[in-house]
Amino acid sequence: MAHLINSDVFLAFSTYATIVVLKMIFMSFLTAYYRITEKAFSNWEDTGTASKDPEERKKMLQTNPNVERVRRCHQNDLENIVPFVVIGLLYALTNPDLSTALWHFRVFVGSRFIHTVSYVMAIPQPSRALSWMVGLLTTFSMAYRVLTTALFL
Amino acid sequence: MAHLINSDVFLAFSTYATIVVLKMIFMSFLTAYYRITEKAFSNWEDTGTASKDPEERKKMLQTNPNVERVRRCHQNDLENIVPFVVIGLLYALTNPDLSTALWHFRVFVGSRFIHTVSYVMAIPQPSRALSWMVGLLTTFSMAYRVLTTALFL
Amino acid sequence: MAHLINSDVFLAFSTYATIVVLKMIFMSFLTAYYRITEKAFSNWEDTGTASKDPEERKKMLQTNPNVERVRRCHQNDLENIVPFVVIGLLYALTNPDLSTALWHFRVFVGSRFIHTVSYVMAIPQPSRALSWMVGLLTTFSMAYRVLTTALFL
Repeated sequence: MAHLINSDVFLAFSTYATIVVLKMIFMSFLTAYYRITEKAFSNWEDTGTASKDPEERKKMLQTNPNVERVRRCHQNDLENIVPFVVIGLLYALTNPDLSTALWHFRVFVGSRFIHTVSYVMAIPQPSRALSWMVGLLTTFSMAYRVLTTALFL
Repeated sequence: MAHLINSDVFLAFSTYATIVVLKMIFMSFLTAYYRITEKAFSNWEDTGTASKDPEERKKMLQTNPNVERVRRCHQNDLENIVPFVVIGLLYALTNPDLSTALWHFRVFVGSRFIHTVSYVMAIPQPSRALSWMVGLLTTFSMAYRVLTTALFL
Repeated sequence: MAHLINSDVFLAFSTYATIVVLKMIFMSFLTAYYRITEKAFSNWEDTGTASKDPEERKKMLQTNPNVERVRRCHQNDLENIVPFVVIGLLYALTNPDLSTALWHFRVFVGSRFIHTVSYVMAIPQPSRALSWMVGLLTTFSMAYRVLTTALFL
């Protein structure tokens, strides 16, 4: 890595942030998979790959519970992974202890994988609620360090 | 903070970015609060905490105006705070004047708090539109400095 | 730019990230334009600018296909531009070859402009699908370099 960034904490942040963002991108493919297999599209021009018959195509402009479930999971990723990336980047620059930082990143990324599985497979609560909360707690812990180290209002 | 980041402008950016991202996370809790008090859920597995009766649970899979309002506010946060964080970070690295930078960050973060209150409490327009526009103008102003300082196509 | 960031690759990233984020912000204005011209709002307080008659205002609380189309495009931007910005920033810090980096940034940003035009004008597939995929492939290519250069688990 460039001379700018040569700390192990920053390398760890780069690794975990990239992994969890790739996981988030995966939700797009899962949405596309369900849209195609469930024949449930939002755009007229998307139905042409599934059928040429205008009547059938019109019926495909529908909402589907599996598609909507994946989309809600994707939205929850945006709402939680974006804060992690922003606060995690600033946290990585506060020179935290390496093993403390690693555990923050690992717990967050692990919690988001568990959250996705819980959501997409509709595993009974509180599995999804707990994984969501664990991810938020690691974000809050990093935010606390950023604000106590860098506060400048 | 680490040796990499020792400018006051960067500390100020870290502080305000963390505060406004925490405000965005708060919207998740507000959504959860309204979902529980209004008994309006999106997922079957979420209704189990409110009732055990399958008929009652089915009725809770509904949309509710208060829940939808908070969700729109959260979405607007994503659409506006993400650009602020990205452009603000690059702006902080252009070595701007400290007091100019501070006012950009303060006005943006203040405008988003006013926007949230205006949205959630449904205060008559143009309060929400104005607070949205003020936040965008500070983002545009920072983007202008980034592009005039760093332009490399 | 500040002493921290004086590499051409970082300047190029700053330029393209700012441009593509500004493009994303433009979707908010396009949504507002369609909401006003199509008289399709989500909030009661927003209808007051279009009419004073309560009956007419009630009718304006409707969904409209043009508004929804722009909103889906905006959402797709969030789902794809956020990963580009995060992974692109980390990629820019891995000290990549300047011309390789430039082409990654150019292809991504170009693909998102084509995606927006394809989406908003409802150009037949696979134009939108292809532009979406090209943008993702540049993101994956940058993620590959970040993970092979910075892997620290």
